[in-house]
Amino acid sequence: MSRQFTSKLAPHLAGTLLLAMAPLASGQATGVIPPEAAAIAAERQLSPDDVAAALKTYMPSGKFDEYMLFSSGGHSGQVFVIGVPSMRLLRTIGVFTPEPWQGYGYGVGNEILAEGAGPLGETHWGDTHHPALSETKGEYDGQFCFINDKNAARLAVIDLRDFETKQIIKNPLALSDHGGACVTPDTEYVVEGGQFAMPLGMAYAPMDQASYDATYRGMVTFWKFDRTKGRIDPSKSFAIELPPYWQDLFDAGKLASAGYVFGNSFCSERATGTAKIGDKNYFESGCSQADTDMLHIIDIKLAEKAAAGPSAKKVNGMTVIPLEVAAAEGVLYFAPEPKSPHGADVTPGGEFIVVSGKLDPHVTVYSIDKIKSTIAAKKWTKDSYGVPLLDFDSIVEAQVELGLGPLHTQFDDKGYAYTSLFLDSAVARWSLGGPYASKHPETPWTLVGKVPVQYNIGHLGCAEGDTASPDGKYLIAFNKWSLDRFPTTGPLLPQNFQLVDIAKTGDTMKVIYDMPVGFGEPHYAQMIKADKIKAWSVYPEIGWNPHTQSVDPGAAKVGEERIERNGSVVHVYTTVTRSHFKPERVVVKQGDHVVWHLTSLERAVDATHGFALAGHDINLSLEPGEAATIEFDANTSGVYPFYCSEFCSALHLEMVGYLLVEPSEGSSKVSIENAQPLDATKKGI
Amino acid sequence: MSRQFTSKLAPHLAGTLLLAMAPLASGQATGVIPPEAAAIAAERQLSPDDVAAALKTYMPSGKFDEYMLFSSGGHSGQVFVIGVPSMRLLRTIGVFTPEPWQGYGYGVGNEILAEGAGPLGETHWGDTHHPALSETKGEYDGQFCFINDKNAARLAVIDLRDFETKQIIKNPLALSDHGGACVTPDTEYVVEGGQFAMPLGMAYAPMDQASYDATYRGMVTFWKFDRTKGRIDPSKSFAIELPPYWQDLFDAGKLASAGYVFGNSFCSERATGTAKIGDKNYFESGCSQADTDMLHIIDIKLAEKAAAGPSAKKVNGMTVIPLEVAAAEGVLYFAPEPKSPHGADVTPGGEFIVVSGKLDPHVTVYSIDKIKSTIAAKKWTKDSYGVPLLDFDSIVEAQVELGLGPLHTQFDDKGYAYTSLFLDSAVARWSLGGPYASKHPETPWTLVGKVPVQYNIGHLGCAEGDTASPDGKYLIAFNKWSLDRFPTTGPLLPQNFQLVDIAKTGDTMKVIYDMPVGFGEPHYAQMIKADKIKAWSVYPEIGWNPHTQSVDPGAAKVGEERIERNGSVVHVYTTVTRSHFKPERVVVKQGDHVVWHLTSLERAVDATHGFALAGHDINLSLEPGEAATIEFDANTSGVYPFYCSEFCSALHLEMVGYLLVEPSEGSSKVSIENAQPLDATKKGI
Repeated sequence: MSRQFTSKLAPHLAGTLLLAMAPLASGQATGVIPPEAAAIAAERQLSPDDVAAALKTYMPSGKFDEYMLFSSGGHSGQVFVIGVPSMRLLRTIGVFTPEPWQGYGYGVGNEILAEGAGPLGETHWGDTHHPALSETKGEYDGQFCFINDKNAARLAVIDLRDFETKQIIKNPLALSDHGGACVTPDTEYVVEGGQFAMPLGMAYAPMDQASYDATYRGMVTFWKFDRTKGRIDPSKSFAIELPPYWQDLFDAGKLASAGYVFGNSFCSERATGTAKIGDKNYFESGCSQADTDMLHIIDIKLAEKAAAGPSAKKVNGMTVIPLEVAAAEGVLYFAPEPKSPHGADVTPGGEFIVVSGKLDPHVTVYSIDKIKSTIAAKKWTKDSYGVPLLDFDSIVEAQVELGLGPLHTQFDDKGYAYTSLFLDSAVARWSLGGPYASKHPETPWTLVGKVPVQYNIGHLGCAEGDTASPDGKYLIAFNKWSLDRFPTTGPLLPQNFQLVDIAKTGDTMKVIYDMPVGFGEPHYAQMIKADKIKAWSVYPEIGWNPHTQSVDPGAAKVGEERIERNGSVVHVYTTVTRSHFKPERVVVKQGDHVVWHLTSLERAVDATHGFALAGHDINLSLEPGEAATIEFDANTSGVYPFYCSEFCSALHLEMVGYLLVEPSEGSSKVSIENAQPLDATKKGI
Repeated sequence: MSRQFTSKLAPHLAGTLLLAMAPLASGQATGVIPPEAAAIAAERQLSPDDVAAALKTYMPSGKFDEYMLFSSGGHSGQVFVIGVPSMRLLRTIGVFTPEPWQGYGYGVGNEILAEGAGPLGETHWGDTHHPALSETKGEYDGQFCFINDKNAARLAVIDLRDFETKQIIKNPLALSDHGGACVTPDTEYVVEGGQFAMPLGMAYAPMDQASYDATYRGMVTFWKFDRTKGRIDPSKSFAIELPPYWQDLFDAGKLASAGYVFGNSFCSERATGTAKIGDKNYFESGCSQADTDMLHIIDIKLAEKAAAGPSAKKVNGMTVIPLEVAAAEGVLYFAPEPKSPHGADVTPGGEFIVVSGKLDPHVTVYSIDKIKSTIAAKKWTKDSYGVPLLDFDSIVEAQVELGLGPLHTQFDDKGYAYTSLFLDSAVARWSLGGPYASKHPETPWTLVGKVPVQYNIGHLGCAEGDTASPDGKYLIAFNKWSLDRFPTTGPLLPQNFQLVDIAKTGDTMKVIYDMPVGFGEPHYAQMIKADKIKAWSVYPEIGWNPHTQSVDPGAAKVGEERIERNGSVVHVYTTVTRSHFKPERVVVKQGDHVVWHLTSLERAVDATHGFALAGHDINLSLEPGEAATIEFDANTSGVYPFYCSEFCSALHLEMVGYLLVEPSEGSSKVSIENAQPLDATKKGI
């Protein structure tokens, strides 16, 4: 069937197509264009490009996407997992915001959310920005995902065996972060950079310029990750005090730049905004005065040494390297960078660091070799806080003019870099030099092509884009505005994730899918080869506690279901299976404290049960094998059905029990005598 | 290009295709199959059916889906809006669960969530089941969406001008509902049926059989909807006391059956489950003893009369028609129905009510004409509670054998009905009789065909499926298990929405898209023609209060920004525009109560700002024109940046301000004297 097309092709296309069709000729032809295709395309007014895009992105039932995208959920507080190329939302992971479908924060997970409490107590949302997948030798290993909360300066750890949040850690220094998470090449550290300056330790200080300069600070925190425990270990973590330069994004060096971490900043002008109504020096102008901001260059080994040394101090229990120590001991260097950039991105081999000042049409490329030799030559001045400021001309490798509003840069397998252009609403592809020059046909350090995106792109992400060996093939534009791309669903518009085909070299990029994101405003996302994820489809054993990732010795067991009273504390041991709870009737007294242990006895994939307790703020998702314990005070007498909230079986609706809270003396009670008479001889009909 | 295919088609296909291609011949040919299509399909191993499905579902950038699906989010507590046929999630609407992206429950909307508090206080999730779009003359009008919360017996009202929840109302009678929402043909009432029986009014009563029979009750509530106000009016609403038969789903009659409401039930055996551990009579068996349950038939006019009459009583402020009154005054009839069904579905013209007992392979079809004449002839016995029980044979029109586990039924424009088969994991198409017989080529009341779905289908939904004039074309299977359909993302698997092409008559149904739903477990959804939705793209005027849907006289106004102190209450009036807040610095004293009024001055579509206050449980989404007011106690001294959390502009990162909470006497304070010295001559670099 397919062959008949080729004879009618323009000669210049036929060769390409025959080449692409080689598998067909060798007997693997499972794909054919059905006769009705043209009519369907015509009826739906699809262009030839649309048809190609449909075929590149459609995922037949039961076939799996090649990549998974781990996307921040922005101020939804969650992480989204999206299949690529189909751009289907596979699942959301509750992180900083309680999520009742998963039961997270509604009886289980509450202790994780409580860990993240700050000076004002718990917050029940987060402003997630930059997910970082765990790495081994600079490659995503599919084991963990880390993500920050800009609003409260927190970091979360998600275990990719069960896609659940295991830890939330509050940074004790500040209430604002941005530059995280990123990981060092073997996930020794998860890096969290601050954003809006404030006194470290979160105490009050006035905001006049003298006070701001003297007491407001930035920071970057190196959280030590214990891969065996799957937890960050605060006792082995440390932070570096930084000037109040509004640190932004950090990226870890790798290979050629292993051992370094790089970060950009903005508002190194130390603007403090309008002090009075009527003032005009808004932050938006005050932070845009100087021509350059400060690229931060941090030497991890020297930082570890300083953190372990006598000059380190403790702030709210956190080890902090004082700014003057960091400046004096070679921990911290600055370099001028084009003003108000949105990141510092390291090339796959670690040779270069790319920074884009969003008000400058160029990207600026720094060389790690030049940085090292400039440091060795002490070719620096000092900034206001005494930090060595490297000579710009000595460390820059190239500057490439791309267009308006360059923000972030990603990389592929063909020696190209991709930079988002916010004001142009476009993605620019440009050629790298150095060791990458042989991988592409173009002159190094030149603009190769652009593709328009819709609209106002922020970050962008390539397949395996932050690893030492990106895949290319797909790029996703994380557009902030969708404007006219989707039907109106009220004044709050979705964002638009656009999938871009970057498989071919040259000026060939094409948008092939628009995914509306109307459930959060993602900032950044990382795309991992899907087969690297080795998640459990059921928990390993019955009685599994997902928080400890081990069998819970206190879990309810089959044959040992019971209700035990100890004074006013009632322990309930309940097993859960298709299609009943055992026990079904739980009677307690008003004022009792109830500790309820539930274990799913299921071993079948997808045989999830829910446990919803009517009128309570409790809902569990009990995946096969899972054990969970909830506690509450039974303070109000009444009749409370509990029921399975996941449609588990044909008799799911009948999977129910009743919690009866008997009134204490003197409470009201329904009297049978006053109730409706019944002809008890007729049961049912 | 397309024409050349047809000459090579098998003769039996050519006619069909030429017919389908008629628009091409008349010059509308915008659709063509590009030369690379076959190679792409081959490389991705797409079958001819896959190619057709891809072309039927792909939505090019900027083109809009034909339908919007309003789906319950199950125990996520939300409503999902999905485009059809692309099956893209356009947005989620926060309903019973706080949602920070929208800012719902994080400073605004808190009062709506508080309205829904029950005897145990607020719940911050819901188990949403059945969305109902508002109707005019039995057709979706695109104005409102209602949805219930099974877990707490609540009902929510969503205004489709801005897709925001405006009201949550707690049913004062019970803690469990299921049979709602459904609306009467002009949305006079939103119907909410109970589920698990309990004493009406939520007091305690023991659960032994005698007490259960006498004091536990079911209910159905008729909530009066005020379309002008966009609110339910509890004072004009009423409920009917029902036997403890676990009412399930309700559907309003229309046209031939206008003025009636129908509902199914299960567990009319009045099983009370296992009283002790070791008992075997679980609800799953106890509720499955009798051969039949009770179809509920309710006469709305007579119910209104009884509710207004002297026999009505008040329970927790709600007007309730006592059971014996409902039975005596013609308000309530029962009819035997096959046991443990999952709904009672009314045909588009209202002539028939379809009930499927899930343990019986048939659907049972009742005739409203026969019901009316049987009532007139008083051909009934009485059930245990004295309710007239109509003679089964007198009211049944047909029974059709479909397969295993029939649950729910929907309708199309071709005289077909579609029933989900849970145990078969299939959708059955069958032919209606009566006035529908002339619309399809098959014999009435016969099975026409089945299509397998993956897996364990619950509800199903057709385009405009609950209206008086369904569209056909698309059907969606709301499958509860996905099992092997998607890559493993942990033990909690997504559900699977499968789009089925039902455009052609006969045994021709095809699944054309799998949508993973890994963010909730939807129960039911309604599909409306997208062009019926007339949502705002910006709020009508600056200073708009979405809660009142009018300009807020207390909103912050441009030129009148200020900070006003009145004792320890501080009012802050802030305007918000690209790219600054005015004022940027807000200084209060520890212990102050802060009332903060924010108004977005934006008029451009998609120019949404956020307002995130660091470390607080506050995040607003300020759509263009929106005004919002938040309140909090500034109890902890410190430095709290506030910032725009929606990427609004090139200077979005600079859109920030600081709330300074000055310590009261005796509190700790950072001293400038102790801080890091600075060379103030160097500002920036």
